[in-house]
Amino acid sequence: MSKTFDVVGIGNAMVDVLARCDDAFLSEAGVEKGIMQLIDMDRAVELYGNVGPAREVSGGSAANTIAVVAALGGSTAYVGKVKDDQLGAIFAHDMRAQGAIYETAFAPADDEAETGRCIVLVTPDGERSMNTYLGVTENLSPSDIDEKQMSDARMIYLEGYRFDGPESHAAFAKAIAATKGAGGLVSLTLSDPFCVERHRDAFRAMLRDHVDLLFANRDEICSMYQTTDFAHAVSQAASEISIVACTDSENGAHILSGEARWHAPAYPVDIVDATGAGDAFAGAFLWAHSKGIGLETCGRMGCLAASEVISHIGARPEADLSELFKQHGLL
Amino acid sequence: MSKTFDVVGIGNAMVDVLARCDDAFLSEAGVEKGIMQLIDMDRAVELYGNVGPAREVSGGSAANTIAVVAALGGSTAYVGKVKDDQLGAIFAHDMRAQGAIYETAFAPADDEAETGRCIVLVTPDGERSMNTYLGVTENLSPSDIDEKQMSDARMIYLEGYRFDGPESHAAFAKAIAATKGAGGLVSLTLSDPFCVERHRDAFRAMLRDHVDLLFANRDEICSMYQTTDFAHAVSQAASEISIVACTDSENGAHILSGEARWHAPAYPVDIVDATGAGDAFAGAFLWAHSKGIGLETCGRMGCLAASEVISHIGARPEADLSELFKQHGLL
Repeated sequence: MSKTFDVVGIGNAMVDVLARCDDAFLSEAGVEKGIMQLIDMDRAVELYGNVGPAREVSGGSAANTIAVVAALGGSTAYVGKVKDDQLGAIFAHDMRAQGAIYETAFAPADDEAETGRCIVLVTPDGERSMNTYLGVTENLSPSDIDEKQMSDARMIYLEGYRFDGPESHAAFAKAIAATKGAGGLVSLTLSDPFCVERHRDAFRAMLRDHVDLLFANRDEICSMYQTTDFAHAVSQAASEISIVACTDSENGAHILSGEARWHAPAYPVDIVDATGAGDAFAGAFLWAHSKGIGLETCGRMGCLAASEVISHIGARPEADLSELFKQHGLL
Repeated sequence: MSKTFDVVGIGNAMVDVLARCDDAFLSEAGVEKGIMQLIDMDRAVELYGNVGPAREVSGGSAANTIAVVAALGGSTAYVGKVKDDQLGAIFAHDMRAQGAIYETAFAPADDEAETGRCIVLVTPDGERSMNTYLGVTENLSPSDIDEKQMSDARMIYLEGYRFDGPESHAAFAKAIAATKGAGGLVSLTLSDPFCVERHRDAFRAMLRDHVDLLFANRDEICSMYQTTDFAHAVSQAASEISIVACTDSENGAHILSGEARWHAPAYPVDIVDATGAGDAFAGAFLWAHSKGIGLETCGRMGCLAASEVISHIGARPEADLSELFKQHGLL
């Protein structure tokens, strides 16, 4: 059956505030390196007041992924809540300008919360430490899910981060039911090991019952299956999910489907800013998979897209990814 | 007499919205290439709706210059109006985070105009075409000028662009009087050839009567003296102004003071985005001049700072300029 959308993403709609700092700044500011921490508005104001000059770019994990699918020519839509304020307008503009359908209900201008933002602190080693004020994106609820849109998607892509939020479980359940009911597939990213800690049981049930394609990195999948044995965790995932795509930083990615396994090597690059590497991997993989490209090549394209994104500041690609794929003989 | 500030800048406070496009886009959108055009909010909305994904960074010509002086360790303040909105907060943050004193009166949140923004369209050749919605920055008036601050400046730096605005002539006059009255110096950038067209007589009077240091590029100074003979225009400027620093793109800069003349060559670099080249030149020159460094070296530092800024997207330096000056034997 023909569907309008290759991929519809659901996640936290965020504007990234990117600033460089050194490790001493992280220590003084009490920021734990390399992970995502949720902060409130007071902390956001405090932290922002202390960081150096910054630049603002649209972010959000699933939104970055959808931007990659759209940049590659995939037909996409994105669901995630922003407010009718200047940062919300920036987010909406960049989503639409990339070619994605973005018709989310804007939170009203008198909402106490603001458009979500993520203060991303980039250290000289290229590692990023994310400080997330969720704002209105936390209020995603079942009423924001358009069942018709979901049923018109070949695949939906769910962001694990969005599991933090009172009504988001119900929103995800509604999206999954509408998609599956119309013969579509469900993909999920685990997002973050601490996110997995907070929602392990719910995630496990979703993996077993609904997820057709899982994205995770080493820490996340080990946390999911409560083991330090990476190979074991990946195998366990593959025993209950049709396709598992697991990234492992400079070691590339492992793709598993039934008994089949492939390894996609990482493309060596000077890391300027690791923000968005996993998002870009997922975006390129999803696009390639939606085009019927073999899983091994999906993984290689994912690794190549990730290498592009980490070679500059900012979580979305600056180069023409199709061109890059061609240069590397993947297209 | 000891002064608190090396340089105090007065100009249009703007947030830049940077997007890449091709020449065909400029033609279709009716944007004239390479210059600054003033636009209203409707046009800003229309243009923004058509451009691709963008990034937001603090801009404003004199603000970029002050950011460079501050980044080099100079003591600075900046005067330019923003609104108490999200873009205004971004501008204020980046100014202060760079170390500049920025205590401008925020325009009230119910002001009809918003914080100024400049939609900068960058073509593949690195040329930038600027589309400026002035917003509240246009309302700079004498009441925004703190005479005590101006009298505490070794030099003020006036942005020619800010001459567009009902009360700005009076604001400039007030700033000049306070600075000069306390023995400080006045510098000015002509900003743009069309800006010179609009205000030639007022600029001429100011040059003759008040300006100690003039920044201009080839087109601007030719427009100022209504000639196509660059050498003649520069000489004429030098006959009425103590120091003239005139940039000429890839030909570097000419520095004139009385009978003395120097040429500072440009540093060859791949141009990614020409936005802010002149601003960075002025910033490095002003800093060096305030430190008593010879005029020829001031010019060389200006050219080197400009080369750094045009080698990446965005109008403010990303590299450590002091370090760069040392590497090139200028410090």
